[in-house]
Amino acid sequence: MKRKVYFISDGTGITAESFGKSLLAQFDHVEFDNLTLPYVDTPEKAQAVVADINRQAEISEHKPLLFSTIIDEQISEIMKGANAYTTDIFQAFMPGLEQELRQHAMHKIGQKRAITANTQYNQRIDAVHFALDNDDGAKTRYYDKADVLIIGVSRCGKTPTCLYMGLQFGIRAANYPITEDDLDMMRLPAILKEHKNKLFGLTIDAEHLAAIRNERRPNSRYSSARQCEMEVNEVEQMFQRENIPYINTTRYSVEEIATRIIAQTGIERRLK
Amino acid sequence: MKRKVYFISDGTGITAESFGKSLLAQFDHVEFDNLTLPYVDTPEKAQAVVADINRQAEISEHKPLLFSTIIDEQISEIMKGANAYTTDIFQAFMPGLEQELRQHAMHKIGQKRAITANTQYNQRIDAVHFALDNDDGAKTRYYDKADVLIIGVSRCGKTPTCLYMGLQFGIRAANYPITEDDLDMMRLPAILKEHKNKLFGLTIDAEHLAAIRNERRPNSRYSSARQCEMEVNEVEQMFQRENIPYINTTRYSVEEIATRIIAQTGIERRLK
Repeated sequence: MKRKVYFISDGTGITAESFGKSLLAQFDHVEFDNLTLPYVDTPEKAQAVVADINRQAEISEHKPLLFSTIIDEQISEIMKGANAYTTDIFQAFMPGLEQELRQHAMHKIGQKRAITANTQYNQRIDAVHFALDNDDGAKTRYYDKADVLIIGVSRCGKTPTCLYMGLQFGIRAANYPITEDDLDMMRLPAILKEHKNKLFGLTIDAEHLAAIRNERRPNSRYSSARQCEMEVNEVEQMFQRENIPYINTTRYSVEEIATRIIAQTGIERRLK
Repeated sequence: MKRKVYFISDGTGITAESFGKSLLAQFDHVEFDNLTLPYVDTPEKAQAVVADINRQAEISEHKPLLFSTIIDEQISEIMKGANAYTTDIFQAFMPGLEQELRQHAMHKIGQKRAITANTQYNQRIDAVHFALDNDDGAKTRYYDKADVLIIGVSRCGKTPTCLYMGLQFGIRAANYPITEDDLDMMRLPAILKEHKNKLFGLTIDAEHLAAIRNERRPNSRYSSARQCEMEVNEVEQMFQRENIPYINTTRYSVEEIATRIIAQTGIERRLK
């Protein structure tokens, strides 16, 4: 039987999920059944959630796990009635931090957002639109405004990586697909040469690439094992020949690809 | 003087930042100077980071704050040499969880990613490409495959919201811009009527919209206060008349818009 897990917050629930999943990922012999409940921000909602957890606890062999980020003290008090193994960031760390910073915490919901509003918001949105406008080599004339130019063969992960870099860090990332023609020419396209210091390459295991391409165009030359192997080999040779830093995306999440590019290149984040 | 804050991890650092910033957002009388250091995954890197923190501590009035998610026990041991007020998720919660789950944690870096690989990865990538292909009303013939159709006037936040829903939750979100022509017609465009149960509206304060549009096309009719007010008023009337659920995005981050849409509509996340 799977162990029931609740991620609960009076805000978005994103932090509760993030820290809870980081912890649970270290236990590989237990299967978890996850449920995220965001915006538990009234006593009524909190009471309903507690009732739900307690019903679950009664029918389960083990009590549910609860990872929470509850800022509001009244809600927090109600949540204590849950028959669950509870881990709460604010309960655990706030008293110590209050002492260290010699200030009482506000215990107000939505502060994270308030702080990062406006300027930061616009940086993110601009960066997302930059990634969209400069996706897939569609336009190249704004490359001088790019923080980084991601290159690689079709479907190696360029687009999601660029979008994530924009959304999460406000970084302006353009991407340019390396085509078979580019590979045949045995040299970097002229437009990329001009911006060589901004280039970062992505590669991927040929087998994985074939699987991804097959979902898009099944049984095509484009998705064949032979074609994928050829493209991957040649693009890696190009990266090495031209001294372009690159990483293999096969075993990485979009978050990891993005953060590794930043760590390797030292590109400055616009959001900190 | 700003208080120096380090977010440190032997992984991406995303969780360390997320929980650290959630806590710090509750203190409004202190200014923080943030630095994220991901992939501190060798003893050498950890020693260099500790040296850096200790130098910082010497020249600062108060010692730095350190929020960390260090899984590797050797690295964790080295980090204890930092002269900082330290908050670590794994140190704080792992012993209790190990007892509750009656299993030793693996203490292996990169487990989160490993678990969420492949199927989940493809769901995310597909959803991101779905958002891109169905952005800004470019194509409408795949609306039957969409989980949600986000509608609203130009630059109210549709595109970043759709992309975030794809990246974070694997939700397939298309978006359609409500134009002046649509508003003049006083009725929902036919293609939206067909999918009325999937519609979700975004609106925004006219003043904020004008500021955003002004960055894109300064001093234009498009970005004028009058035009923005007119469009916002009319689109809100449309949402009300047609009984389309909607939220005002002015004070929300992309994460909040996305999670609120999910909470309000009950759309099922494809990634849990």
